[in-house]
Amino acid sequence: MRIHKTADVSEKATIGEGTSIWNNAQVREGAILGTGCNISKDVYIDTGVKIGDKVKIQNGVSVYHGVEIEDEVFLGPHMTFTNDLFPRATVWDDSMIGKTVVKKGASIGAHATIVCGAKDSPRVIGKYALVAAGAVVTKNVPDHGFVVGVPARLKGFVCRLAHKMQEKKRLVGFVEMECKICKTTVEIPIKDYEMIK
Amino acid sequence: MRIHKTADVSEKATIGEGTSIWNNAQVREGAILGTGCNISKDVYIDTGVKIGDKVKIQNGVSVYHGVEIEDEVFLGPHMTFTNDLFPRATVWDDSMIGKTVVKKGASIGAHATIVCGAKDSPRVIGKYALVAAGAVVTKNVPDHGFVVGVPARLKGFVCRLAHKMQEKKRLVGFVEMECKICKTTVEIPIKDYEMIK
Amino acid sequence: MRIHKTADVSEKATIGEGTSIWNNAQVREGAILGTGCNISKDVYIDTGVKIGDKVKIQNGVSVYHGVEIEDEVFLGPHMTFTNDLFPRATVWDDSMIGKTVVKKGASIGAHATIVCGAKDSPRVIGKYALVAAGAVVTKNVPDHGFVVGVPARLKGFVCRLAHKMQEKKRLVGFVEMECKICKTTVEIPIKDYEMIK
Repeated sequence: MRIHKTADVSEKATIGEGTSIWNNAQVREGAILGTGCNISKDVYIDTGVKIGDKVKIQNGVSVYHGVEIEDEVFLGPHMTFTNDLFPRATVWDDSMIGKTVVKKGASIGAHATIVCGAKDSPRVIGKYALVAAGAVVTKNVPDHGFVVGVPARLKGFVCRLAHKMQEKKRLVGFVEMECKICKTTVEIPIKDYEMIK
Repeated sequence: MRIHKTADVSEKATIGEGTSIWNNAQVREGAILGTGCNISKDVYIDTGVKIGDKVKIQNGVSVYHGVEIEDEVFLGPHMTFTNDLFPRATVWDDSMIGKTVVKKGASIGAHATIVCGAKDSPRVIGKYALVAAGAVVTKNVPDHGFVVGVPARLKGFVCRLAHKMQEKKRLVGFVEMECKICKTTVEIPIKDYEMIK
Repeated sequence: MRIHKTADVSEKATIGEGTSIWNNAQVREGAILGTGCNISKDVYIDTGVKIGDKVKIQNGVSVYHGVEIEDEVFLGPHMTFTNDLFPRATVWDDSMIGKTVVKKGASIGAHATIVCGAKDSPRVIGKYALVAAGAVVTKNVPDHGFVVGVPARLKGFVCRLAHKMQEKKRLVGFVEMECKICKTTVEIPIKDYEMIK
């Protein structure tokens, strides 16, 4: 565990073994960070936020209350979460906080924006999904999905190393997709595959 | 008044009663902040900027010279202002600073960008307007207007609590719009209403 | 040379004469900054980054390893670079770092995103080019080119003071363009001119 002298880590936060926290980062009370994470310069981890193991958070990211980050997630530099669908300076209702879940192994590109879901239907960024730099996500992203643009559209699917995959064959209810570089295959549900635009 | 020990607030700035200034925020000389404001982590308030009462500025926002913020404005996390229409590293003319006014009660979503107006025709974000997360605003936004996208387009109108309103009836020169949740109505000038795309 | 007391500048970095480094900025080992630069609040200059003379970097910019900044470049507030085309939290291969070169006199607008090129074909932002606020650049920008939007498209060409130029006359292989304000002309190669959309 390594906490830079300028970082502000609450005594009521829990920090896992081997996690590094860098310059001017802030971790608030009740936040729980897993093991082997890297929390970069100026990052803000809000009250009660749960972050998994081996998560890499790049410079300037604010992870607000209502956001949950699973293991091995990558949050690119200066990407932004939200947690308020009806923001007003003088109105704040804790019981209405918007929700977001970033699933295991997903990566969110630099400067992307994730618009939260409602409190009972969280925005979901699927396992091993990849959100392109600068995208503004307003819909859920399926597992392994690759989304791009404003608003973000599904352009295809990526492997565990974030390479684009190609269709290999059709199965009942699935499309088998293959990464030409890794030679790995992933079965993508037809309903997800048909969301490609 | 509450100023975090890592905040850098000029002795020549004026800070209103009940205003909080958080970690690593900077408020420069000649800035005037109203009462009951919340200035979050890493915020930068430039020289001579005027900010009203009960304004909420989220993490990482820079409010540059040439920007004016009225009462009860919400500036979402990591949104960005500009004040230079012809930016070059070696050219800077104080007399040419671009202008922006954010009117009472308006909210600017996370990660949005506001392109300034010229010095004699400021960019105006109208009263109780709502700029969506990730939008890039290049035109004025009417009172209660809701804009989205890059470049931002007017998609509709919102009530004081930021809910979408529906057309109720046509009046001479106005459309009466209603919030189905709040049951409030707002008269929107026809010329603004017809800007919806 | 002027380094704010809260800035974190490595002893193994080289800082040119007359360069200012402001609040909470960080300059890492092996970085080389030229003379007369202005490095604003919260800026991060990564290991080994080379920055020319008279460069102006606004608040909150992270200049990552793999990015090179030539003389007189303007990096607008909160714009973002990238250096990883296949980002994953648990995979990092230094030999695969994506590259970007920002040429002399270019300006990158507030909140823009520059997607890096591959390690052997850098993303190039041409001399005196202008990237609009909020643009997401995914292709090279020619000298004097003005790009806007997501993804960024070439909309025209600008002079050294960032004013839009008009076509004056056609030459063999070039279009002579003129700034009506500065009365200067620039010869734009036909192949660049025809990329206007």
